[in-house]
Amino acid sequence: MASAALKDELDIVIPTIRNLDFLEMWRPFFEQYHLIIVQDGDPSKTIKVPDGFDYELYNRNDINKILGPRSSCISFKDSACRCFGYMVSKKKYIYTIDDDCFVAKDPSGQDINALEQHIKNLLCPSTPNFFNTLYDPFREGADYVRGYPFSLREGVPTAVSHGLWLNIPDYDAPTQLVKPLERNTRYVDMVLTIPKGTLFPMCGMNLAFDRELIGPAMYFGLMGDGQPIGRYDDMWAGWCCKVICDHLGLGIKTGLPYIYHSKASNPFVNLKKEYLGIFWQEEIIPFFQSHIFSKDCTTVQKCYVELSKHVKEKLGKVDPYFVKLADAMVTWIEAWDMLNPPIKIPLMPLQNEAIKFYD
Amino acid sequence: MASAALKDELDIVIPTIRNLDFLEMWRPFFEQYHLIIVQDGDPSKTIKVPDGFDYELYNRNDINKILGPRSSCISFKDSACRCFGYMVSKKKYIYTIDDDCFVAKDPSGQDINALEQHIKNLLCPSTPNFFNTLYDPFREGADYVRGYPFSLREGVPTAVSHGLWLNIPDYDAPTQLVKPLERNTRYVDMVLTIPKGTLFPMCGMNLAFDRELIGPAMYFGLMGDGQPIGRYDDMWAGWCCKVICDHLGLGIKTGLPYIYHSKASNPFVNLKKEYLGIFWQEEIIPFFQSHIFSKDCTTVQKCYVELSKHVKEKLGKVDPYFVKLADAMVTWIEAWDMLNPPIKIPLMPLQNEAIKFYD
Repeated sequence: MASAALKDELDIVIPTIRNLDFLEMWRPFFEQYHLIIVQDGDPSKTIKVPDGFDYELYNRNDINKILGPRSSCISFKDSACRCFGYMVSKKKYIYTIDDDCFVAKDPSGQDINALEQHIKNLLCPSTPNFFNTLYDPFREGADYVRGYPFSLREGVPTAVSHGLWLNIPDYDAPTQLVKPLERNTRYVDMVLTIPKGTLFPMCGMNLAFDRELIGPAMYFGLMGDGQPIGRYDDMWAGWCCKVICDHLGLGIKTGLPYIYHSKASNPFVNLKKEYLGIFWQEEIIPFFQSHIFSKDCTTVQKCYVELSKHVKEKLGKVDPYFVKLADAMVTWIEAWDMLNPPIKIPLMPLQNEAIKFYD
Repeated sequence: MASAALKDELDIVIPTIRNLDFLEMWRPFFEQYHLIIVQDGDPSKTIKVPDGFDYELYNRNDINKILGPRSSCISFKDSACRCFGYMVSKKKYIYTIDDDCFVAKDPSGQDINALEQHIKNLLCPSTPNFFNTLYDPFREGADYVRGYPFSLREGVPTAVSHGLWLNIPDYDAPTQLVKPLERNTRYVDMVLTIPKGTLFPMCGMNLAFDRELIGPAMYFGLMGDGQPIGRYDDMWAGWCCKVICDHLGLGIKTGLPYIYHSKASNPFVNLKKEYLGIFWQEEIIPFFQSHIFSKDCTTVQKCYVELSKHVKEKLGKVDPYFVKLADAMVTWIEAWDMLNPPIKIPLMPLQNEAIKFYD
């Protein structure tokens, strides 16, 4: 077997409530990596992991023991608990995948090695400051097109790689209800950088990131048991990560790789989880779109703590939930720093400085 | 033969210096449309157009006669002269294509009807205010994904459809010199909206737009004979159109359709045309990125005239060429309004107003 890329620098984080039979299908691609399994719900239940995988597993009791009172920031009975895995990892990169995601096939019928593509995405620069019409200029056979400023061609470090899904698309409950039979069958052979200043809906099903660059912002919020909403965990993380990446000069890519999403969740259950989020996002999006960080925000942690203050101040007026969430954001950072000696990210230029071609 | 979409509402504009044999290949797709041919260079030369096409042809003498002293804004000995065709058209939509662009094939081997795809792009809304990870949500089999705000799902009117090129990619001279053998062979089956606030390099080879919405901003500048630069005509138009579309709440799409670009232009000649542009774009891009229109700018014309003042004031310091260009921008608008009774575009909301779900 060929050695897997970054095998000692990447952990695979899987939240689950059931036996991980789905890993059999991923064996050729995942077996050389270390898995961090976060068991959701009842800790007395035993989760079976197929033989041959190298893993550590945390249930709610473990989370409570490790984090003590700070475990309150980790969601219970919701896949948002996966972010605990990001915190206990000691690796530079994380890949997280849902247990209803299978290996997809490319148009030639070949199995797609999703992780390999995510690693490619993370290891080559992003281009958030100007749109390239041939998409990722670092891909073989592509480049920057005529009119792309030369001073921006180095790109910026990539913090997040957001992969997509064939078969069941990631729709909200209203769209699921209206289009129960819709399937995503279109393979778009492309990766692109989400431009600076633009928000996107980040899905946690098939997601990789550089935890040294952006880890402390990858908090999946308070969802599930005892909370008024669900299914906004990854969205929340995506909005926070995007504004922080924009501020720190980091990039987020979306597109390839695809996984095969096998099963639509129940739209009625989803509607119950989502309906407050559907209202609230109309306030949340403008909040993030207009958010500006102070100049002191030179690390992800500093950005995140400042963001939590603004969440409390501005979104707290929308619903008391956001006051609780803002406090949990601070607790999350405390817990992160407790488990991880704070890493200082050097201050990156906020604007790309044009090469001085002339005086 | 099936009736062509919008055949009485769309003109095809072609700038050329040679016989238009390339139209033979486009016959099934173009024959029902009206062509506006803008003859570049020596007006005494006769351009042959294949039989059966409905066309009007303008050479330099015609342009001088029609515009009088204002003809100074139309470039000579450069394909930038094509924008004269936009001005004399009386149709709502324009498609413009270069005479070295042939019909491309999709991955199934079928000829691509580029014009049909452009019309689809123009007739359905754009989504510049938030990124949709499944790309164009209006395409069959796609929709908005979970987390996309419902208040933004109507989209905004589409002003421009920017198509791409298989075979010879649209590279600048330095890239052409470094990668003489690179060919674009990748068919990316996608259309997307360029997000608000993001600039892109607009190529004029395969481009469609709604001239009622954005026509007066589609000026290709001063290039070619007597000017210090070339090959920045479409880029200039793209930057101006993008900031104006962003201000007026209009959308620009890029992606499908592809044409087959047959022939790389000479990189040495291109380098001579481009080299000042390569320097200048390092100043031009930040100029456009930071440009803000005043609230009075409620029509494309008003935006364009205000932009010309800023070009003179700010870019005039970079080189006197921009003073001349700024004057030509005003002349262009005068000429446009002379040939076209000014159309007032109703003021569109600059920010999408969230639906009020609750008080």
